[in-house]
Parts: sequence; C-alpha cells; structure tokens
Amino acid sequence: VTSSDRPLVILQPAPQRPERIFTPSARADLESSFRVVDLSDDHDPGSFDEVLPEAFAIIGQPDLPAERLARATTLRAICNVEGNFFPNVDYAAAFARGVQVLGCGPAYAQAVAEYALGLALDVARGISREDRAFRSGTERYVLDGNADAILLRGARVGLIGYGNLGRALRPLLEAFAVDLRVYDPWLPDRALFEWGLVPATLDEVLRRSQFLFVLATVTADSEHLLGATELARLPDGARLILVSRAAVVDYDALRAELASGRILAGVDVWPVEPVPADDPYRRLEGLVFSGHRAGGIPQAFHQIGEMVVDDLRQIARGLPPVRMQVAARELVGRYRNRPVT
Amino acid sequence: VTSSDRPLVILQPAPQRPERIFTPSARADLESSFRVVDLSDDHDPGSFDEVLPEAFAIIGQPDLPAERLARATTLRAICNVEGNFFPNVDYAAAFARGVQVLGCGPAYAQAVAEYALGLALDVARGISREDRAFRSGTERYVLDGNADAILLRGARVGLIGYGNLGRALRPLLEAFAVDLRVYDPWLPDRALFEWGLVPATLDEVLRRSQFLFVLATVTADSEHLLGATELARLPDGARLILVSRAAVVDYDALRAELASGRILAGVDVWPVEPVPADDPYRRLEGLVFSGHRAGGIPQAFHQIGEMVVDDLRQIARGLPPVRMQVAARELVGRYRNRPVT
Amino acid sequence: VTSSDRPLVILQPAPQRPERIFTPSARADLESSFRVVDLSDDHDPGSFDEVLPEAFAIIGQPDLPAERLARATTLRAICNVEGNFFPNVDYAAAFARGVQVLGCGPAYAQAVAEYALGLALDVARGISREDRAFRSGTERYVLDGNADAILLRGARVGLIGYGNLGRALRPLLEAFAVDLRVYDPWLPDRALFEWGLVPATLDEVLRRSQFLFVLATVTADSEHLLGATELARLPDGARLILVSRAAVVDYDALRAELASGRILAGVDVWPVEPVPADDPYRRLEGLVFSGHRAGGIPQAFHQIGEMVVDDLRQIARGLPPVRMQVAARELVGRYRNRPVT
Amino acid sequence: VTSSDRPLVILQPAPQRPERIFTPSARADLESSFRVVDLSDDHDPGSFDEVLPEAFAIIGQPDLPAERLARATTLRAICNVEGNFFPNVDYAAAFARGVQVLGCGPAYAQAVAEYALGLALDVARGISREDRAFRSGTERYVLDGNADAILLRGARVGLIGYGNLGRALRPLLEAFAVDLRVYDPWLPDRALFEWGLVPATLDEVLRRSQFLFVLATVTADSEHLLGATELARLPDGARLILVSRAAVVDYDALRAELASGRILAGVDVWPVEPVPADDPYRRLEGLVFSGHRAGGIPQAFHQIGEMVVDDLRQIARGLPPVRMQVAARELVGRYRNRPVT
Repeated sequence: VTSSDRPLVILQPAPQRPERIFTPSARADLESSFRVVDLSDDHDPGSFDEVLPEAFAIIGQPDLPAERLARATTLRAICNVEGNFFPNVDYAAAFARGVQVLGCGPAYAQAVAEYALGLALDVARGISREDRAFRSGTERYVLDGNADAILLRGARVGLIGYGNLGRALRPLLEAFAVDLRVYDPWLPDRALFEWGLVPATLDEVLRRSQFLFVLATVTADSEHLLGATELARLPDGARLILVSRAAVVDYDALRAELASGRILAGVDVWPVEPVPADDPYRRLEGLVFSGHRAGGIPQAFHQIGEMVVDDLRQIARGLPPVRMQVAARELVGRYRNRPVT
Repeated sequence: VTSSDRPLVILQPAPQRPERIFTPSARADLESSFRVVDLSDDHDPGSFDEVLPEAFAIIGQPDLPAERLARATTLRAICNVEGNFFPNVDYAAAFARGVQVLGCGPAYAQAVAEYALGLALDVARGISREDRAFRSGTERYVLDGNADAILLRGARVGLIGYGNLGRALRPLLEAFAVDLRVYDPWLPDRALFEWGLVPATLDEVLRRSQFLFVLATVTADSEHLLGATELARLPDGARLILVSRAAVVDYDALRAELASGRILAGVDVWPVEPVPADDPYRRLEGLVFSGHRAGGIPQAFHQIGEMVVDDLRQIARGLPPVRMQVAARELVGRYRNRPVT
Repeated sequence: VTSSDRPLVILQPAPQRPERIFTPSARADLESSFRVVDLSDDHDPGSFDEVLPEAFAIIGQPDLPAERLARATTLRAICNVEGNFFPNVDYAAAFARGVQVLGCGPAYAQAVAEYALGLALDVARGISREDRAFRSGTERYVLDGNADAILLRGARVGLIGYGNLGRALRPLLEAFAVDLRVYDPWLPDRALFEWGLVPATLDEVLRRSQFLFVLATVTADSEHLLGATELARLPDGARLILVSRAAVVDYDALRAELASGRILAGVDVWPVEPVPADDPYRRLEGLVFSGHRAGGIPQAFHQIGEMVVDDLRQIARGLPPVRMQVAARELVGRYRNRPVT
Repeated sequence: VTSSDRPLVILQPAPQRPERIFTPSARADLESSFRVVDLSDDHDPGSFDEVLPEAFAIIGQPDLPAERLARATTLRAICNVEGNFFPNVDYAAAFARGVQVLGCGPAYAQAVAEYALGLALDVARGISREDRAFRSGTERYVLDGNADAILLRGARVGLIGYGNLGRALRPLLEAFAVDLRVYDPWLPDRALFEWGLVPATLDEVLRRSQFLFVLATVTADSEHLLGATELARLPDGARLILVSRAAVVDYDALRAELASGRILAGVDVWPVEPVPADDPYRRLEGLVFSGHRAGGIPQAFHQIGEMVVDDLRQIARGLPPVRMQVAARELVGRYRNRPVT
C-alpha cells in the first residue's frame, strides 16, 4: 500500500510515552497498516487540528469537544491509552457520529489481579511482616509467627465491584475454591448467577468476608462507600485488599481499624500520593503498603500497544474491535477520574 | 458400643501436641469410635509397651523396632502426625504384618502451596521490598518501582519435585496459564504427560524458568542438587522459590547470586535455624525471607486430626484409608528427615 | 410507580410467542418495571405506529426503516428475540439515534454447545449406530463394535468460527484436555492467544482435526466454505460436527465423503428442511442426523425472557445492558440470515 | 544390559491379547528393560511354574494360590491387565511377601467417563431417538422434538460410587457447572468435602437427581441397590446412566419405569449378554442401548501396556508404581467380579 492508501492515525498518547506502549515490533505493525502522525512531543493544538480532518483514528486522550469532533469527519475510533475515560471528550457527539470510543483498562486487569492476590496472600500469612522482622533480627520460626495465619482455600471472600478487575481476579481465586460473594450494584443478580457467581448486598459481603477485595471504580455513589460503620462490620481478623480507587474508602476510619489490630490490609492507592512523610500509616504493623503500583508494569503497557494495533486493524477491515474495551455510553460520563501523575 | 468394643488407639503424638491437631470436635469423634490411651505426656516406655499388645492403631511417631512390632499383634495402623517418616520404625516389619503406615504430609501441602505462590508474587512484584521502603520513607510510586515487575500469567515456570507440594501448587499456577515444566526423577515421563504436565530435565527447568519452585524432598541424591553451576543456569531476573528442604540448595552459591542482583528469591527453609544474627542473608535486597513458616499453620494441624479420625474409622470398617498418605515401601526408608524442632 | 411512570415497552416477538420466552415470573418482572403494550397477536402496523412515539423499547424484530425510527423519539432499545439480525432494520439510523440494538444469540449458545458435544461423543463412539443395531437385533458387544472408537481426551480438535457458540463449547472441550486450534478470520491472532487459544488457518484446522466443529455464521465469504476440496483435507476417520448454518458446507460433497465411510459426521442443519423423503442422507451409516434441534430448547427460550427483562431494567437505570449481545455496527448488516420457520 | 541382568517378567495376559495392550513401541520398551517370557499362548501350568521362581513380575491374572506364591521367591509385582481383581489370587499371601498387586482399572476410566457423558447428552436431548426417526422418515424439526430436552448445565446430578469412574467423570461434569452430589458409602464425608464434593445419602441422590450416574462396583452390599422402590424415588423425567455393573440394578424394575415413559436411561451393561432376541428392552423408546462398550476401546487397551511398562520400571528402580492402581488389601477380596467374555 502506498502512504496515501493507509488510514491516518494521530498518535498523541500523553501522559503515556509511545515507546512505553509500543514495542518496536508493535510500532512496526502500526506503521505497516497506518500512516502515523506522531504528535507525542508536539502539544501545539494547531498541529493536531491540521491533521484531524483526515484522521481515521486517534491514539491518546486529547480534548475532543463537539466542535472539534465536528471537523473530524473521517474519524472512526478514539483509543484511550491512559486507562480512564476523562470528561474532556464529548462522548455523546462521538457516539452520534459512529466513532468507536475504546479504552485500555483491560490491559491493566491481569497485573492488578495478580498484585491483589499477592497482597492477600501476604496479609494472610505475614510474609512482608516477617521479612521485615528478619532484617531487624526479630523473626519468628515455625509455629511462632503463624498464630494468625489462614488459608485462602475455602475462605469466605467478597468482591466489591465486578468489572475488569473482578473478572481477572476471579479465576485466580477459584483455584483456591473460595466461597465467593460479589457486590456490584451495576449488575443484575441474574447476570451474576448466569456467570456462576453469587450476588450479595454490601452488608453481606462486609459481614462475612475473611478476605474483602475492593475493586470498585469511583462514581458519586461510591465515594467513601466504606466508612467507619461499614468497616466495623468486617469480622475480626478480616483481610482488606484495596487496589482500585482511594476515594472508595475513608482512610481515617481504616487507619483506626488497622491500628487496633482488629483487621489487616493491603493497600495500593492513597488519598494523597506520595503519602506524607509523617503519616501514621507508615507505622502500622497490620498494613502491607504499596505505592499505586498494582497495574502499571511493563507487560501491561506493552499490551496496550498491541490492543491498539489489533483493534484499529479490525475497524479498518470493517470488523468490530475485540481487544480494547468499548466505552459504554451509559457509563463513560459517570466516572470521576483524574489522570495518574 | 461399650468401652471394650471400641478398638484401642495409643495417642503419643510428640513433638505434636494433641490439642493442636485435634479440635474438641475431632477429639470427640476420635473418642466416640475408639478407646484412646493418651500418652501425650507420659514418655515412660513401659506405659506404651503395656497397652501395645491391644493396640489397633498408634497416633504418633514412637520408636517401633521389629521386636516391639512383634508384640503389637493386633496393630493395624501407624499414623505419623509430624509430617516426615523417620528411621525409628522397622517399616519392612510393619508392612509384612499388614500394618498400614500412614503419613500426614498432605495436610501441609495446601498451606505450603499458598505460601509458595505468595512468595512468588512478592518477588515478581516487589511487594515486601516496597513495604519496607515505605517504613523508611523511600517508597516509590506508580512506574518508578515497577521496572523489574513481571506477570506470573504466561510465564515460564519450573517445578523441581512433583509430590504433595507440586500437586497442591499446580492448580494455583494453572489459573495463571503458566508455561509449566516439571523435573522429577522419581516419575516416568508418560505419567506426567498423562496428568497433563510436561516433563523436563533439570537442565531444562533451570535454563528456561522465570519462576522456579523447589519442592523436592531430601534424599542422598538430592542433597545440594542446586549448586553454583546449576544456579548459574537460571536466566537473568529469575525468581527462585524454596519451600521444601534447605539441603537441596547450596546456600553460599545462592547468596552470591542474590547479592549480585542477578536473580531474586523467596526462601522459607535454612541450613541453620535460627539464621545466625550476623548472616549476610539478612541484608540481601533481592530476598524475601521466611522462617520455616510455610506449612505449620493452625488449619493444617487441624486437618491432621481429621485425617487421622477419618482413616482410622475407615480401617476399623474394613475399608482402605483415603485421606492420609500411605507410605510407599520403596521410599519410606530413603528420606533423610529429622524432626522440625 | 404509577402506570405512567413506567417506561413503555412494545412486545411484538413474532415468530416467537411471548409465553415461550417469558415464564410467568419473568413476565411479572417485566410488567412490574414497564408498561407493556402486548402486540403479539396484533399485526396491524397502525397499532404499532400508534404507541411507537412513546416507546422506551421494542421486544421483537419488526420492520424498522429510518422513517419509522425517526418517529420513535424516546426509543432506547430494540431487543431481538429470534436469534438473528435481519435486514429489516435501518441499523445505522438506530445507532445514530443512540438506540441499543440487542440480540438474544447468547441464550442459545449453551444448548448448541451441549448438543454439539453430544453429537461429537456419538460419532466418536457409535452410540446411536449401536442403539439402532440393537433394535434390529444386530448389536455388537464389548470389543466388536469399538474398532473405530476414539477418545475425545487429548484429541486434535478444530473450531471453525469462534463466536457465541465457540465460547460456550470451549470449556466443555477443555475438560477433555483437547489439543485445540481455532480458525476465525474475524479475529486477530493475538486476541486468540490472549484468550489462551491457538489460532490456525482453515487449511490447518482441516488437515489436523480428528474432531472439527463448524460453528461459523453465514456471510458472503463463508458460503460453501467447506466444499469437496476442503473436506478431502480432513484426515481419515475425522468427525465433523455441523451445528451452525447449512450454507457453510457443500452437502453433495459431504454426502460423498460420508458414503465412502472415510469420515463421520453429526449434522443439525440442512439446506432444505424437512430433508426430502428420499434423500440419500437418510441411509448413511456414518451420519448422526438431527433436525435443527441444537438450540431451541425450553430453557434457552426462557433465558431470552430473563435477559430481556434484566437488560431493559439496566438501560432504564442508566446502566449498560449486560446479558444480551450488543449488535456490532460493523457486522449487523453482513449476516445472511433468514428466520427459522 | 545382558539378558540375565534384566528382571524376568512372565507375560500371560489371557483373556487379553498381548498385541492388544502393547503397541510395538510399548512392547519394545518392555523387552528393553525386562527379559519377557511370553506365555500368551502357552496355557500349560508347567511352563508357568518353571519360570515362576525367577520371576520379578507377572503380567496377567493367572491362578496364584499361596503355595504357588511361596515358590515365587523373587516376585515383586502382579499386574492385572483385565480390569478386575478375581478371587484366584491369595492376596493376603502376596501382601505378606511384599508383592505389589496392581490393577489396570484406571486405563478404562476416561473411556467410560466420556461414554457416560455421551449417553447423558443423548438422553437429555433425544439424539439417537431423532436419528432413528430420520431413518424411518418421522423426524421432527426445530421445536417439535425438543419439548423434553434439558440442559446438563446447572442440572442436579448424582453419582452413585466415586472411584476411578467418578474421578474421571467429575471434571467433564464440572465443565457444565452441575449441582453435584455423591453417594459412596466407602468414603467419609469429610474426604468428599476436602475434594470439593458434596456427599449425600442414597435417598438424597435418588430424589434430587435429574441425571443419575451409576458408577458403583458390585459387592454383596451393592447387589440390586436400585430396585423398584429406589427407582420410584427418581423425579419425573430423570435420566439414569448405567455404565458400571448390571448387578447394581433390578432390570425388571428399570424396564417398568422406562416403559411408562416416566424416566429415560442410557444402559451399557446387562444381566445377560447378549440381550435375548425377544427382550422387551429392545422396543423401549426411552432407552439408549449399548452393548458393554463403554470402556474397551483401543486407546484404553494401549494405555494398559504403557502403564505396565512404566510401573514395572519404577519398581525395578526401587520406586513406587505411579500409574496402575495399587490394590487395597481391604477391598481386593470384596469385589464380585467375573471376567468379561
């Protein structure tokens, strides 16, 4: 194909870097199928607007108000490569024009699920606690450090939220034959039953879970979903794993529960990052700390690049995208996301 | 049933404590089916010898030379509740008399498998490393700490040894769709293929494994199976998980590999326990330390008690045991075990 | 809620019957959430057009040209309850108006997958052949009838097409640890790899499959995909299972292969139904015949009703549908469907 | 190795044929490790007795009373290659001498499990019934023949007996997410729970099962386990699958239930084989007949040969057998088996 035959793709992935998401091989695939205008380092709106009328697709999350979309007459797809949908796009206008709005959330899901399981096994068995002790010469051997150790196998486990993260975590948990309950107010009970899951109310998952995974995204409804009242419902010795959004939990209430030793937690997301130097969380024994590291690993980023190439090729062939997440018109405006910085 | 109808069981579980392995409910089950002579705190050989001629079964691992077994004319089962078979029993004499020799190894397997996976996810993602950093105020956020993070999903994984531990670990690993190879010189290749596994040589599992789980028991053949030469074959960035027996690995060679940063490891068993206070292992960044804690958790101990009751009842009914591990006459004398102290 | 608060739903499911898809309980659910105008037996277009301007959703597959859709100003969803998308809807107009176009295909998938596996096991082992023989007194015992019997376990299996049917069949086949390859020209290889599958060309799946499942839908490209040349590539003794669309296969070529005894087949769909009384297919020994019965069982129909209720409630709550299949704008016009009569 | 170094193995597999169980490759493996004395066609007891004192192992099921075993001073293993343990061996004497008694039952289990599932899917959906109808021109299309069709997915399923057959069938059933209950009086409830199964009484599995698989072996206790009273407890429309032993069921009672149309059945084993020419079973519509064909397929026989070679090599290396079934001293005398003829 000659250059002019290939559909034009605008690449402006900031805050992503193109080399982080496209391996050389994926970049070569992209270039072989599309005419790529790389604006990774060109933030002049004029450059973008100049090529927009010819664009088949945009890789990135630039501002796309209705008036700009109106000039994108050949646009077929917007590929978000950050992971969240922001309010800087007029989604209704995009849908009305038949533009596919695609997200890369699924690329992070396996990394987050593995990390969440790692945190759960750590707080179940005291792995990082005893490793710390070893470095100060106070480690315990054989039975001495195992009084509160529990199996994941057969445990009562709750999920709050069953989207990409829950779907990726589920098979990992099922290998442990856990007794699983799912709370997700966006899903009908019969859908969960059909998928082989058992739906539950928020109260039920709180009261019964030995392991509780908080996987919910943030909307107006889910902010501080877990406050002092809710956390108090967790059974003694419960393990809380928080890997989605900090806004879902009241951190003061959580700190009080952890300080008392009543529950244990693995926490990857924080209301303020970095956590302040003198934050009392830094001295909690029952916490496994993590610095917003659950999803952003090299393999996840590389998967984004491959997903983008695969789905743009699908669309160019007149086929539906199959790897990225098609934005739900009902939800895309409800998330309260801000870019990870 | 009257007291005299119930078969007599000698309970002398040292170094186990009876209350650790029998929950009140399991103890009640045991007492309801058997006349229990509890010698937990009576180490006078005379007491044991006095009831031995009437004994249907022994729960524990007392010395049982041939001459003692010769007096145990009604003995049907010996239930080891420590986890290893020691050389203080004349196993050939027991087998010749039709006495079942049963081990409780399977009771620990799930606990060890979950722990091994926890160590693997920790070294894959730097969980305890970053938790430590947080406590000294040097933690990293988002991408900064993830340069060497890898997924378990799809990874090349090797198992050294495929006994109880490997069987318990396998379904956990399969949930990650790993590319698994197994080295076990005690198993024919066709058996592994039949079980859906891919056999490999030691050299193959060393050279290809991103995650290598050492699950082998110790025999004369497996002592220092992994020395400097073998460890050098591991690919850069490999994660080694050691949860079976310290004697399988040369710890000086392993320390050198970890000190160089070429590989990472999670290690639960040590040549000397406690590890000496000034051991350089205590300062290794690429290590997740654990103090022989993988198997001995409360749920594992309680499972031993239930297994013992279930299988003694089976044998008393003229049925084969189904929960404990029947000692293989070919192997029971080959292990080089010593009690965990 | 008062009657006027509830969104209006038009029910005109022909050729489906409302009582076939809605159990009394599902119908009650529907009525509790929506104001249902039941036009099941009212085919006067005037009745439909009268309520259309107020309609929130349509359950059925009536003609919906652009001009009709233009009057449906409050329409949010069209729920096809037949199973195929027909060309009597102006899909582009529907998408431009933000109307969800939903299909019930997934409701049949499990029934078809189970049936396909049943046919495969039948032709693998001669189940219906020997049952027929029994009724004429010529049955064979023990080894005599088993010369050509093969296991599904570990067999080389191919799928042609990986949509709803393939997804439902896959876990059933995986329980047999089959060596699976998938040919689907609508899916990128990397997507199949990501889902844990191995993609293959049509030629590969033909040449290697001991069991070949034809699950493809019909488009201009797939008509007579399997002619004499392609069928000749199947290995001797191959088992062909055909449960999707008759148009995919050349039935004269297939009959020749079956008559020769070189391959065996289970066939559920036919170019002309009923099959003519004197059709030579009726005398083929290597065939298991079925009369388009794979999908249409009572439980599948009832699932349609539940899916419709669940998804209409989702949309009414401002949430995306999760149970029905969202029509792909790229594909909905490409199928060559005609109603099952 | 020279001929005299290789352990001597007596091959007298009747009623099996050596070429049926040993592929040329497996036979070559056997010969390379052992000095094989092939008595397949030499039934003179003198020939057998002449080599017995030197024998390391016997492949077959010859008479082995205590006095004969007493002369087999180097015997280490008896490999039954028929599938059942007969009362022609003094098992107690063999065990006392430390001779391994091995069975080939597991080799048939996968074949039987696949067949049982095939029968279940057939009676669930009327596969052979409609194929028969097609051949007489009375077949039904689409909905007409599906009134009684049911899914296996989610169905209430019972197993009677959980030995080799149940273990092989279980993963196949689990792929259908069935609601499974197991009745096996030889297994403690806690063992079933530990294996992830739900134990039940005979009455429970009868009263609740939409699909009931009879997988029990025959002992004095299980003869006519299912008589008229028990069969009457099955729910209307139940599907009974009988693939183990005819003696477990009262065939007159079963015929009455099938003739009434109240239940359906797939039956592979018969009190008299061949079934008499005028047996009314031959005219039952609700029956899928099979002539004792579930297990004896070529791949199962070839697996026997491989199992034998693998395990004899294990024993010769001082390792336990891993592929054949080690006879349970408690059970080996309780079966009421007679050779399949």
